[in-house]
Amino acid sequence: MAFFFLDAYYIDMNTHDINILREWLGDKGIITNERQCAPYAQGWRGNTGKCAAVLRPTSTKDVSRIISYCARRKIHLIPQSGNTGLVEGSIPDDSGTQAILSLDRMNEVKDIDPANRSVCVQAGTRVSALNNTLEKYGLFFPIDISADPCIGGMIATNTGGARYMKYRGVREHLLGIKVVLANKHGSIIDAMIPLHKNNTGLDIKQLFIGTGGIFGVITEASLLLAQLPKQIATALLIPRDKNDMNELLISLEQKCGQSLSAFEGMSGNAIRAALKHSPSLTNPFGTDEIPNYAILIEITYDWEKREGQQSLDDELKLILEEVWKDSRTPLDNALVGAPEKLWALRHALSEGVQKSGNRLFAFDISFKRGDVMRFISFMEEMLANEYPELTICDFGHIGDGAVHFNLVLKKNSRKTKKKEYESELRSLVTDIVVNNYGGSFSAEHGIGRKNQKFYDLYTPEEIKAVTRAIKGAVAPIDIGAIKI
Amino acid sequence: MAFFFLDAYYIDMNTHDINILREWLGDKGIITNERQCAPYAQGWRGNTGKCAAVLRPTSTKDVSRIISYCARRKIHLIPQSGNTGLVEGSIPDDSGTQAILSLDRMNEVKDIDPANRSVCVQAGTRVSALNNTLEKYGLFFPIDISADPCIGGMIATNTGGARYMKYRGVREHLLGIKVVLANKHGSIIDAMIPLHKNNTGLDIKQLFIGTGGIFGVITEASLLLAQLPKQIATALLIPRDKNDMNELLISLEQKCGQSLSAFEGMSGNAIRAALKHSPSLTNPFGTDEIPNYAILIEITYDWEKREGQQSLDDELKLILEEVWKDSRTPLDNALVGAPEKLWALRHALSEGVQKSGNRLFAFDISFKRGDVMRFISFMEEMLANEYPELTICDFGHIGDGAVHFNLVLKKNSRKTKKKEYESELRSLVTDIVVNNYGGSFSAEHGIGRKNQKFYDLYTPEEIKAVTRAIKGAVAPIDIGAIKI
Repeated sequence: MAFFFLDAYYIDMNTHDINILREWLGDKGIITNERQCAPYAQGWRGNTGKCAAVLRPTSTKDVSRIISYCARRKIHLIPQSGNTGLVEGSIPDDSGTQAILSLDRMNEVKDIDPANRSVCVQAGTRVSALNNTLEKYGLFFPIDISADPCIGGMIATNTGGARYMKYRGVREHLLGIKVVLANKHGSIIDAMIPLHKNNTGLDIKQLFIGTGGIFGVITEASLLLAQLPKQIATALLIPRDKNDMNELLISLEQKCGQSLSAFEGMSGNAIRAALKHSPSLTNPFGTDEIPNYAILIEITYDWEKREGQQSLDDELKLILEEVWKDSRTPLDNALVGAPEKLWALRHALSEGVQKSGNRLFAFDISFKRGDVMRFISFMEEMLANEYPELTICDFGHIGDGAVHFNLVLKKNSRKTKKKEYESELRSLVTDIVVNNYGGSFSAEHGIGRKNQKFYDLYTPEEIKAVTRAIKGAVAPIDIGAIKI
Repeated sequence: MAFFFLDAYYIDMNTHDINILREWLGDKGIITNERQCAPYAQGWRGNTGKCAAVLRPTSTKDVSRIISYCARRKIHLIPQSGNTGLVEGSIPDDSGTQAILSLDRMNEVKDIDPANRSVCVQAGTRVSALNNTLEKYGLFFPIDISADPCIGGMIATNTGGARYMKYRGVREHLLGIKVVLANKHGSIIDAMIPLHKNNTGLDIKQLFIGTGGIFGVITEASLLLAQLPKQIATALLIPRDKNDMNELLISLEQKCGQSLSAFEGMSGNAIRAALKHSPSLTNPFGTDEIPNYAILIEITYDWEKREGQQSLDDELKLILEEVWKDSRTPLDNALVGAPEKLWALRHALSEGVQKSGNRLFAFDISFKRGDVMRFISFMEEMLANEYPELTICDFGHIGDGAVHFNLVLKKNSRKTKKKEYESELRSLVTDIVVNNYGGSFSAEHGIGRKNQKFYDLYTPEEIKAVTRAIKGAVAPIDIGAIKI
């Protein structure tokens, strides 16, 4: 295998390129019409790029051919599957010279193997479609997020989500991968071995997990599945003081262990925003005032209720009574039941917050679990003094130390929409996260164009050097939205 | 960062080298006396190498200095921590020119963080010592194997073990790592960030998991811990026909989900060997005949028995009665209880088998879960015809599709101990595993000198090429027992 470096400038696609690619991919395989390209070039949060074309292969071989051709012609490719990411990792920039490599025609689900609890999927398969197919086997791919992404993008983002505490993330469910390397040959790596245990050297699939496509394009994956839970109980907890959250988490973990499948914080501000935006949601607090902070917890058992056993709701009530009596973990109130309504509210927070103000500055950050609430308290005080025009609408995966820390510019704010304001604010918050708390500027959304600056700033030099050396050695073609 | 390639030949250490290293590391930091070196140079299964010296640094900085010096002097280092591996991955060859880099003086446990369920350990920490320290916090590092390895070696081997079904392996419990790269600078990579979720680019620690030290020497790790289980129930199951094992496994998984923490197969031959070798063990079958095959299952709950709940033993009895009634999963017998005795037997199988015949040919292999018993049946027939001098003494982690497939040369066998016999046998079995069943030649023991041949033979060329390219780019110094 020989490797080479390309310069970082790219040329436009021309009619000749389009014709050649159309010949390979067929009429459905290439889109050049601006209106039809537009949805591919628009990000989930509304940010829009511009592309030269959308290429839609139907096989790994075609992906390889495209990568090889575009390398030769210096056409910069942006791999895309579900395009539900939040960090501009799957949309082109606004130059109009980049081409989108869409996996949306590669969505086959095959080799469902209940005995092995595994399945093979093509990268453009929606997680909802996969889970619908798996339901009759009592199995599912247990990554739970508000959006409906495709498997390829989930791998490239290493999606975590709301039930990570019990199930963990994409990395822990990837058995095998098929990928086309970002080199001039478009080398195909077939590592689709669906074994639970396999320790035979470098686990090559790790290169492609959470790296936003910089090393190549994932075309297929072999996934480890989980049993669908048989009993689920949810509750909404109101802590007396949100700074006690940590004691509450530890206490619940000690009483529930791995069956505690979610511990999701929701600020009163985020709840209000969701209820206002989606009138069909049920307000779990009825006519009462919405509390300052609430926690959605879930426990799941993978087995049916056995003879003589109480319902899981009743068991959860007992657990919460114990927690209540425990003076270290003060609870003001707890409502057990209504899982669909509570999760509908939880999953509506993101969009509700997005729509609630003039502008949203969203941070997907993480901490050692003991630090999350310390950080939020610190920020509340600091922002109230220095940025009174902002409302904190945080929510997130407190059980994993992760929080979607959202700052909403109040509707009546006279602050301008200047770029500098956002840039200053982003730098300030991220600097506190990383330097004061040893936290991460991206808990689970990945890097993307949006976090490029923070990758550059906060990744230790020696780690950047290793990443670049690997990129240069195995996947030297510039591909994807980020630069490492 | 600049990289270079060293040739693969090495020179001997001389008195000058020894003196310089002694000055840095102190008298305790270097061993050259042959008798004192011997235990470091001897592998767990008795295979012995010969070393020029044992170097025993006490800090990451010293490890860096050693690697840098030895690179310049072309001294080949073999990193070693607990030296309990089974594939000759941590012992030198018999040339006497290699030096062991032992982590046995780096065994500090620090930063125990119950709120974050994490701990920092130096690489030379024994897992038993770590778990003793953690016990009072109700936490443990949940990798369960018969030996007592150190954390560094466990990472380099990606240890799996007997409770992988519930807890998974080392890879899933590694939050952060500190490592010295195998380059001429001995570059230190500090990625000791103990976050549950952190998605900020290439997860660099993955390079060092299961790769036997070829990319560098792990000096510290940040580990994710699990709650100690609060209720445990074990049972010994006798399936009517071991070919029904798979239905039994699926049925139990459906009834227990993630609380099924072990599903360990034990052949009658392996049980007999263990009982004979260790008279202190309890024969769970009393005076009855030992069955052809038995399965040790364990279910664990992470919570205390709650008011009104039955004991987990009673619950397990109910579960097994349901399985019993289910005609798809025929059970001949089941004995619930006596966890210590059953696990003592399980953990004594390896040594019992080792001592039971003239010679042991051990295979650590894995399959899609549905294939394990098909493979064993096939081999029983094939070996009975073609290798009647061998007894199959298999046992292992059937719940993970993994099996320790042991072939014991009968004591009265007239077969010679010739190298060719072993070589032919190893090739035959491994070829069937990989080519006929799509299985792995190393489920969890890693590569090591012992599996080098199979790595060379069965690793796809494109994966070897990527591994070599990465090695050349980031860690070009030849280090460790294997060559990639």
